[in-house]
Amino acid sequence: MSGRYEAKLAELGVTLPDAPAPAANYVAFVKVGDLVHVSGQISAGPDGLIKGRLGDGMSVEDGAEAAKVCAINLLAQVKAACEGDLDRLVRVVKLGGFVNSAPDFTDQPKVINGASDFLAAALGDAGKHARAAVGVAALPLGVAVEIEGIFQVR
Amino acid sequence: MSGRYEAKLAELGVTLPDAPAPAANYVAFVKVGDLVHVSGQISAGPDGLIKGRLGDGMSVEDGAEAAKVCAINLLAQVKAACEGDLDRLVRVVKLGGFVNSAPDFTDQPKVINGASDFLAAALGDAGKHARAAVGVAALPLGVAVEIEGIFQVR
Amino acid sequence: MSGRYEAKLAELGVTLPDAPAPAANYVAFVKVGDLVHVSGQISAGPDGLIKGRLGDGMSVEDGAEAAKVCAINLLAQVKAACEGDLDRLVRVVKLGGFVNSAPDFTDQPKVINGASDFLAAALGDAGKHARAAVGVAALPLGVAVEIEGIFQVR
Repeated sequence: MSGRYEAKLAELGVTLPDAPAPAANYVAFVKVGDLVHVSGQISAGPDGLIKGRLGDGMSVEDGAEAAKVCAINLLAQVKAACEGDLDRLVRVVKLGGFVNSAPDFTDQPKVINGASDFLAAALGDAGKHARAAVGVAALPLGVAVEIEGIFQVR
Repeated sequence: MSGRYEAKLAELGVTLPDAPAPAANYVAFVKVGDLVHVSGQISAGPDGLIKGRLGDGMSVEDGAEAAKVCAINLLAQVKAACEGDLDRLVRVVKLGGFVNSAPDFTDQPKVINGASDFLAAALGDAGKHARAAVGVAALPLGVAVEIEGIFQVR
Repeated sequence: MSGRYEAKLAELGVTLPDAPAPAANYVAFVKVGDLVHVSGQISAGPDGLIKGRLGDGMSVEDGAEAAKVCAINLLAQVKAACEGDLDRLVRVVKLGGFVNSAPDFTDQPKVINGASDFLAAALGDAGKHARAAVGVAALPLGVAVEIEGIFQVR
């Protein structure tokens, strides 16, 4: 059984992975009221980690693809928070986007657009969110992008 | 027509700019319940972008001025979220302050004080907020400061 | 008088410090509804600041200890937000962990585990939180770790 949003994802060629559980003393998401706070999701796709540093040998296009993978992982967590029914998602509220950046790289917004564009395509108006995009010195396991998020659900 | 807060801003010599709309698939703010999540605002003032890296040729004073500009842009978005009536702002809840920093620069709090001092001067007790101030490797377009915020409105 | 959580903390050898008040125009926490947003707490322990950069002469173990100190300081603020009764804490919702990192350091999660493990030990299920862990170029006063948090209280 697939809901409205998962049908749209399939149309876009995206299947949500199983929501990975953290390997430590924290959880992938906490629901409080109608908001789900999702832990930072890294650019880990079906073919493994997408590593690299923007401005140091990695293209903006590859960075945007890494950001899209983070967004897919965020949605997988939201689906788990909604007991498997992604259609309970009301709104993407806020994304915090961290881009592994060399000091002279200044196109963080174009990288995080990989997540924003995907969410708009998959979710329509419900996918339009507030966000921040900053360049950080280093990320876990050397990944290119990490994105955390707040989501409103019913 | 100008409300109480905008009168105070005028007294401080500050006119809120039109709230800039993002040029991508995200929005400047999302309101959920009585909280407004505002996207990261960069140090883009009436005279253009305030670029630079603290600890690398930019003074703390200039950094604090950049942070103030970010705070002005945040208030412009809050005003838009309140349909033009800034007096509907109840409280600045939280600021996330990102300072473009050389690795040996450790005065991020003094830089973000440029935003905090301005909000306290403009809004009084309603301007007192929780915050974080960290030093990042790089910021969009090379700006000196980016600040995101959560605001309570009525 | 000591509540249930403080008794557990004592068992772990931890006494909460007085909640330090910021020396500027912001506050240590803002409570809105049942959520407390706590300002970024730095690794400042009873013996002073824990300074250093991971991947540049500081071990993961020392970094994790710094993260634990941040978590202790966060709980001290939550206790203050609960007028001295830490047992009013319902849930740690979200931690934002910033690790002072050299560009090739990629074990930010192991560092922030110092905070997550401590909160799980001290608070049980109430201590399990969503989180993000990123590596930043620089932190206030040269500290090794800064962590901000959102907490649900009654």
